Amino acid sequence: MSRASGPRSGDAIFASVERVNAELFTLTYGAIVRQLLTDLEEVEEVNKQLDQMGYNIGIRLIDEFLAKSNVSRCVDFKETADMIAKVGFKMFLGVTASVTNWDADGTCCSIVLEDNPLVDFVELPDTCQGLYYCNILSGVIRGALEMVSMKTEVTWTRDMLRGDDAFELQVKLLKQVPEEYPYKDDD
Amino acid sequence: MSRASGPRSGDAIFASVERVNAELFTLTYGAIVRQLLTDLEEVEEVNKQLDQMGYNIGIRLIDEFLAKSNVSRCVDFKETADMIAKVGFKMFLGVTASVTNWDADGTCCSIVLEDNPLVDFVELPDTCQGLYYCNILSGVIRGALEMVSMKTEVTWTRDMLRGDDAFELQVKLLKQVPEEYPYKDDD
Repeated sequence: MSRASGPRSGDAIFASVERVNAELFTLTYGAIVRQLLTDLEEVEEVNKQLDQMGYNIGIRLIDEFLAKSNVSRCVDFKETADMIAKVGFKMFLGVTASVTNWDADGTCCSIVLEDNPLVDFVELPDTCQGLYYCNILSGVIRGALEMVSMKTEVTWTRDMLRGDDAFELQVKLLKQVPEEYPYKDDD
Repeated sequence: MSRASGPRSGDAIFASVERVNAELFTLTYGAIVRQLLTDLEEVEEVNKQLDQMGYNIGIRLIDEFLAKSNVSRCVDFKETADMIAKVGFKMFLGVTASVTNWDADGTCCSIVLEDNPLVDFVELPDTCQGLYYCNILSGVIRGALEMVSMKTEVTWTRDMLRGDDAFELQVKLLKQVPEEYPYKDDD
């Protein structure tokens, strides 16, 4: 695997893929969250379930990402985070994100979203304090990265539905599993 | 309410609205169905729940439809069905649908979908016989029509996941509630 002609821009990919109406997506996602709140009762359980659903989506969505983006292997976690923010979010949600707050050894950073189609028209009632409404996104990132051999922990550090001024996901690299090549190149 | 400049085409609206990646939507919808199958166990209950979720989405999505499509009031159920098929499906899912199988008195027809982004990559295991995987769509139509005073019954008569050659939704008008105008025009 080597990078042939360099990654395509998130905008170019987003323009070329099949898309659906964002409001339909937003309302459908809202219907899931509501359903989980009804079925599971505990907000903490809903957070876990949304994260797990996201994980299951992420381990599949990575294929689409790799196939469409022309990104093959990132040299390090830093480049990986940039790809998620600049290509991944654009390609799937149509929004751009930025990467900030790197720690000294380059294994922990924040992805900041200023626009988030998941939360259009959403207001949380008081009974939902503690809900991470967008927790599916943290699961997607965790699942996708696991498929490229990076074990991560992804947590919300800012959430506009909780009164913060942006959405901020902290992505922490726990372990990078060296890729194994069970097949020879010419298989 | 009168029709000013005529409805916009589904293509034009779809091109102008905010959108998200269709594969993300497909996988997210798949995650809902899987979740419901786990939580509810009975396939029949899952069908009901998907329909109900769709209904809740439809009663809100109709606002976006009316706001963006320039469609105000349809003269009859026939025109309504055409609008759903030609403008609605295009505007929200990016696909076109056709209307067929009208009964003699114009109160029952079929909407046929040849392309359906909800089912990309979906195969139902044998344990899911009886599942109407796309039941959210019937709920959306039922909910949206109820908000424009049409009580309908919407059922699947063909389903490609069950081996049929297309997706066909039968839409039956049960009752048309005359619209009331509690406010004067100049309010």
